[in-house]
Amino acid sequence: MKKTASLKTLLNPDKIAVIGASKSKDKVGGIIFKRLLDSRRRLFPVNPKETAIEGHKVSPNIQSLPDDIDLAVITISAAAAVKSVESCIKKGIPNYIIVAGGFGEVGEEGKELEERLRKLAKDNNVNILGPNSLGIFLPDENIDTIFVEHADKALDRKGKVAVIVQSGSVGVEALGYASNTGYGMRAFIGLGNKCDLDEIDFLDFFAKDVNTNCLGFYLENIEKGRQFLAAAKEVTKEKPVVILKAGRTHTAVSAVSSHTGKLAGSDNVISGALKQFGIQRVYDDEEFCDATKVLSMLSGAPGNRVAVLTAAGGYGVMCTDYIEKKEMRALLTMAKLSENTKKKIKDATFPFTACENPVDITASADDRMFSESLDALIEDKGVDVIICIAFFAPPGITENLIDIIAEKTKKSEKPVIVFTKYGPFTDNSIKNLFYAGVVAYPSIGRAVRAARFLVERTKIKQRLDQEV
Amino acid sequence: MKKTASLKTLLNPDKIAVIGASKSKDKVGGIIFKRLLDSRRRLFPVNPKETAIEGHKVSPNIQSLPDDIDLAVITISAAAAVKSVESCIKKGIPNYIIVAGGFGEVGEEGKELEERLRKLAKDNNVNILGPNSLGIFLPDENIDTIFVEHADKALDRKGKVAVIVQSGSVGVEALGYASNTGYGMRAFIGLGNKCDLDEIDFLDFFAKDVNTNCLGFYLENIEKGRQFLAAAKEVTKEKPVVILKAGRTHTAVSAVSSHTGKLAGSDNVISGALKQFGIQRVYDDEEFCDATKVLSMLSGAPGNRVAVLTAAGGYGVMCTDYIEKKEMRALLTMAKLSENTKKKIKDATFPFTACENPVDITASADDRMFSESLDALIEDKGVDVIICIAFFAPPGITENLIDIIAEKTKKSEKPVIVFTKYGPFTDNSIKNLFYAGVVAYPSIGRAVRAARFLVERTKIKQRLDQEV
Repeated sequence: MKKTASLKTLLNPDKIAVIGASKSKDKVGGIIFKRLLDSRRRLFPVNPKETAIEGHKVSPNIQSLPDDIDLAVITISAAAAVKSVESCIKKGIPNYIIVAGGFGEVGEEGKELEERLRKLAKDNNVNILGPNSLGIFLPDENIDTIFVEHADKALDRKGKVAVIVQSGSVGVEALGYASNTGYGMRAFIGLGNKCDLDEIDFLDFFAKDVNTNCLGFYLENIEKGRQFLAAAKEVTKEKPVVILKAGRTHTAVSAVSSHTGKLAGSDNVISGALKQFGIQRVYDDEEFCDATKVLSMLSGAPGNRVAVLTAAGGYGVMCTDYIEKKEMRALLTMAKLSENTKKKIKDATFPFTACENPVDITASADDRMFSESLDALIEDKGVDVIICIAFFAPPGITENLIDIIAEKTKKSEKPVIVFTKYGPFTDNSIKNLFYAGVVAYPSIGRAVRAARFLVERTKIKQRLDQEV
Repeated sequence: MKKTASLKTLLNPDKIAVIGASKSKDKVGGIIFKRLLDSRRRLFPVNPKETAIEGHKVSPNIQSLPDDIDLAVITISAAAAVKSVESCIKKGIPNYIIVAGGFGEVGEEGKELEERLRKLAKDNNVNILGPNSLGIFLPDENIDTIFVEHADKALDRKGKVAVIVQSGSVGVEALGYASNTGYGMRAFIGLGNKCDLDEIDFLDFFAKDVNTNCLGFYLENIEKGRQFLAAAKEVTKEKPVVILKAGRTHTAVSAVSSHTGKLAGSDNVISGALKQFGIQRVYDDEEFCDATKVLSMLSGAPGNRVAVLTAAGGYGVMCTDYIEKKEMRALLTMAKLSENTKKKIKDATFPFTACENPVDITASADDRMFSESLDALIEDKGVDVIICIAFFAPPGITENLIDIIAEKTKKSEKPVIVFTKYGPFTDNSIKNLFYAGVVAYPSIGRAVRAARFLVERTKIKQRLDQEV
């Protein structure tokens, strides 16, 4: 039975045809086929020059494929890709991922090819992702068509961030970096040239997806700006939406035009509109990953009063600097601790503990002292967000601190964000915190910035709720 | 023959007594003794309870030590440490490192002990580093007395940055982190409570040290402020001086007071004075390491016009945003490339290459194209600094790019700073660039900030030269 086009089947297909599948690990068609072998789906390689690949019978042409294919992944080059889509449509295949470049981004001839694809999609009611798409990657579904090397080892199963990127390298490099320290990814979508499917389609899809709780976009141009913003505004009522849209300055805007071949639009207008519609904007890939990570793992902050707990006094001071620095994003303030809180911390630690915020329990502290001090801060009604500076160098602090913080953050309504460093073990330390459900960053600036994202998110949510 | 006190022998001693040396790897005296075994110096452990440690005969007491010891490392606790210094002075030992805490930072009794040490140093003309000192670490001299775990694997032999820190954890954690990606350290000095030796002594020493080309201080309080600044001003004429001094805001300044037990002073006054005297101030440990790394590896920037070379268009745009952002530190501007430069790049790459700055040679670029485009930018008289966005994902780009960039940066007067990411290989990728002599960072913001440090440094140098 022929299937109908839908993102659900595109992203979670039963039967996948790989047009241009290859034995060679150096070819795109070889890399993608190999990745899909892990998908536990039925694969149908097509290649006139092969008869078998990895135990799969190869069809010499598209006509000889079965009638109920869900998705065709087209790995061959531009002109041939367009022809193969025509054949696949005759065969009744409803969903496509087109990997090849050489379309609208390289000149007139490519533009014509891309226009043919656009028309094919429209006239035949099929879904086309791309061309020039990096592919899709959904860890929970075991679906991975991304042909460049990418880090997935530290991506969490049951991750909840949908990452939708227009351009390849930014997305892949950013995620590779994020995954070094743990990142909960629900899906990675490479939009490419957007001849058919675009950011609005995936916004709608992941807004409704129960496994997604945060949507992140890297967009170089937003063609249907008004429509996208209107749709996004509805989504932000329920789920945070983050956009990495570079091109803040005049020169940068010109650079966007020459990179995408499209007019990028005045940045002031974009910025104002994003703000109005409750979309949180970021300016580089690190900020993108940091923001989506914290927004996915913690559900906002009741206010902007931050308490800092540290066993290394110097870092407490640096952290205070960052918290009180004026930033365009949400303002933060140092919480004023209650007398009761201070007493509890002194009782739990030392008579000489500096109990004004930042709370410095000194390098003589141990796990229990850290734990009880954290309890006191969580219970203080004057504290909205807690930043824990967790080092493992002091002799009394052990890796059990990870579980201690994890247990408390699970129970507490108040967000706890950790800053940690651990010499050459830093990345693993953050990853272990991540596996335990704790958001951590390797620099003070990034930990404090994460608190700003949470406060900003809560304000947006409150404003949108009031408008209703 | 008895030795006289000098920093030279303290930092590079021939004969070292370890008071409280132990067999146990869990004791400070055990850890330090073990580290010093690698120093290829003559060691003299002292411990009444041991007879031999690792093939070294143990002296039961200080009196039985030889007469020509250069340095005593005191690993025993506060009150006992003071008594042992008294005995060592009778024995004629000129230099001391005192590791134990429990002095001025914990209350009246500790303050008295510290005062006794201060008096001992003054009356007997000996050098005391500490108490509460983390120790010293000089990679080229194989001297390491640091008792907490620290990363040294990626520290460069022949490193040129002298790192002088008041508080332990900040220094060690920062360096551990920096060393993950390569860091050229000449020396690490833990000042501790500064009962005798302080920042001014080490400023003077490393200013004259031919193997040091950059001095970095982490200070929580500057007691002899005027004297330090006057001395530092002389140094900055020749070598960049960076200070991490947290406590920018009012709350942060209070926190400094409670952490160090000393008045921290108005931050505005400090900031103004540092600026006037040509000292480059930073606000956290990551910035500290990033700044000293670039200032040590590159010798300033002739101007503030930056060219960006990228094979990933999106990153070029983000980088432009960072460059044109107004920052309190030196302003940067996007360089306007000459017609000749643009022609050279187009000839070396593709007719469709976006040759306005940022120069985007696209993911179809290869090593040769990157290399020739970089040449064209280096030769352009309108360019002062170059930021290379170097990714290894595009099929035409190989790890040879590291050598290509290294070769050019060695020849060129113009600073080249690299931003790179490489999935889980990021740290190693930056480390390999470092070993090849290239400064690289894993985020755009940090790469651009490094360019600001260079431009700031050159401006300071020009101003101080004019004053002469």
